Amino acid sequence: MKIPVMEVFGPTIQGEGMVMGQKTMFVRTAGCDYSCAWCDSSFTWDGTGKSVSKQPQEIIEELRQIGGESFSHVTISGGNPALHKGIGELVDLCHQNGWKVAVETQGSMWQEWLRNIDDITISPKPPSSGMKTDFGKLDFFMENLADANASLKVVIFDEEDFKYAEDVHLRYPMVPFFLQTGNSDTVTTDDARLVQDLLERYEWLIDISVNSTIMNDAKVLPQLHTLVWGNKRGV
Amino acid sequence: MKIPVMEVFGPTIQGEGMVMGQKTMFVRTAGCDYSCAWCDSSFTWDGTGKSVSKQPQEIIEELRQIGGESFSHVTISGGNPALHKGIGELVDLCHQNGWKVAVETQGSMWQEWLRNIDDITISPKPPSSGMKTDFGKLDFFMENLADANASLKVVIFDEEDFKYAEDVHLRYPMVPFFLQTGNSDTVTTDDARLVQDLLERYEWLIDISVNSTIMNDAKVLPQLHTLVWGNKRGV
Ligand code: SF4
Ligand code: SF4
Repeated sequence: MKIPVMEVFGPTIQGEGMVMGQKTMFVRTAGCDYSCAWCDSSFTWDGTGKSVSKQPQEIIEELRQIGGESFSHVTISGGNPALHKGIGELVDLCHQNGWKVAVETQGSMWQEWLRNIDDITISPKPPSSGMKTDFGKLDFFMENLADANASLKVVIFDEEDFKYAEDVHLRYPMVPFFLQTGNSDTVTTDDARLVQDLLERYEWLIDISVNSTIMNDAKVLPQLHTLVWGNKRGV
Repeated sequence: MKIPVMEVFGPTIQGEGMVMGQKTMFVRTAGCDYSCAWCDSSFTWDGTGKSVSKQPQEIIEELRQIGGESFSHVTISGGNPALHKGIGELVDLCHQNGWKVAVETQGSMWQEWLRNIDDITISPKPPSSGMKTDFGKLDFFMENLADANASLKVVIFDEEDFKYAEDVHLRYPMVPFFLQTGNSDTVTTDDARLVQDLLERYEWLIDISVNSTIMNDAKVLPQLHTLVWGNKRGV
């Protein structure tokens, strides 16, 4: 079953969440059922980017061609990769090649292949995104991933987002929980200023997390790739 | 048994390695059997800092007093914490309080209490440190920690260090492996310039790691606290 692919790139490092720093290839799929106000990959769903439908085996060959022998980990990101049933076959093929697979999805659409993912990040979206979380669906997600290597990650722009994150963490207390700095300017090319802004936001996020007893076992992280490469794509 | 303590601070976040981003308190012990050229905590062993010998129970009370209810994780760092037998009692007391404990040590001195640590980082020092690794001792360490939640971390300043890291990773292929950017200026207060330098070094480290097939399953990370707070102490 074909998968609409926006870009295949790497190897580079995973700049976010539970496998931060991991050397990995990226496969970015097209399409999202959300439209977050601050989406940093809106080109996957707003019509400004172009996708090509590819068979899983074609994607495997592209990964090999681009990454050579220099990787053993593949991250499937989006958009929302969980829109695409065909990813199940891609995951199986990656595993046959000895590669581990990571996925990030907001937890709005279930796919059976999610059970086979090595590192799953579920990233429900806080109020500043303009989206509304269907907690019934998220409960279903977290129940089905109870035995998986899954984590929750919430991007934080303001105090209301932080309150939302506390609620999510309290709802699923056993799931490893990550807080992440938001990027408020996903188009600027003034990297020095962006880095300064991101580090200030990160310091603010550390401050409020440190003062919240609810967040005692949370991990508080920035986006490493944005610190290193700004808003550049494909790195 | 008393432990020489340089500082107790937090809660803040762990800026390095296997539990990067984790909210944690820090207990920094005095003394080191090494004297790395670029040591960022040389005040623990070069006579410029002052330590106070404390009973484990006193340290627990200090942690409670400073951290209140806002933590559930304690990082014991140094210097080399593995110089001190008394830390075994401190670790037990932390566990009795429901706190997890992380330790970082270069792997030159063994202590039985290392088996009880929740997150252990072994950080052998590369050639640029001026130190020489006793691989016999390190083998003993890694064998004894085979069932522990242990990782290896090597700080990289130059290509020779990277070669050393490849050798270490090949020697213990099953142990989670972290590469970390070095901080070449541990005294500057020019934070903007330091951040730029650290991010450039991080990008360089990503580049060589991406091109090394030996490092396919490594994680490549900066020091987050240095990016946020520069060379400030106690944050
Ligand atoms: S869920 Fe993710 S990809 Fe979709 S709009 Fe929101 S941020 Fe963008
Ligand atoms: S082992 Fe660590 S504390 Fe000791 S001198 Fe080296 S860097 Fe400093």
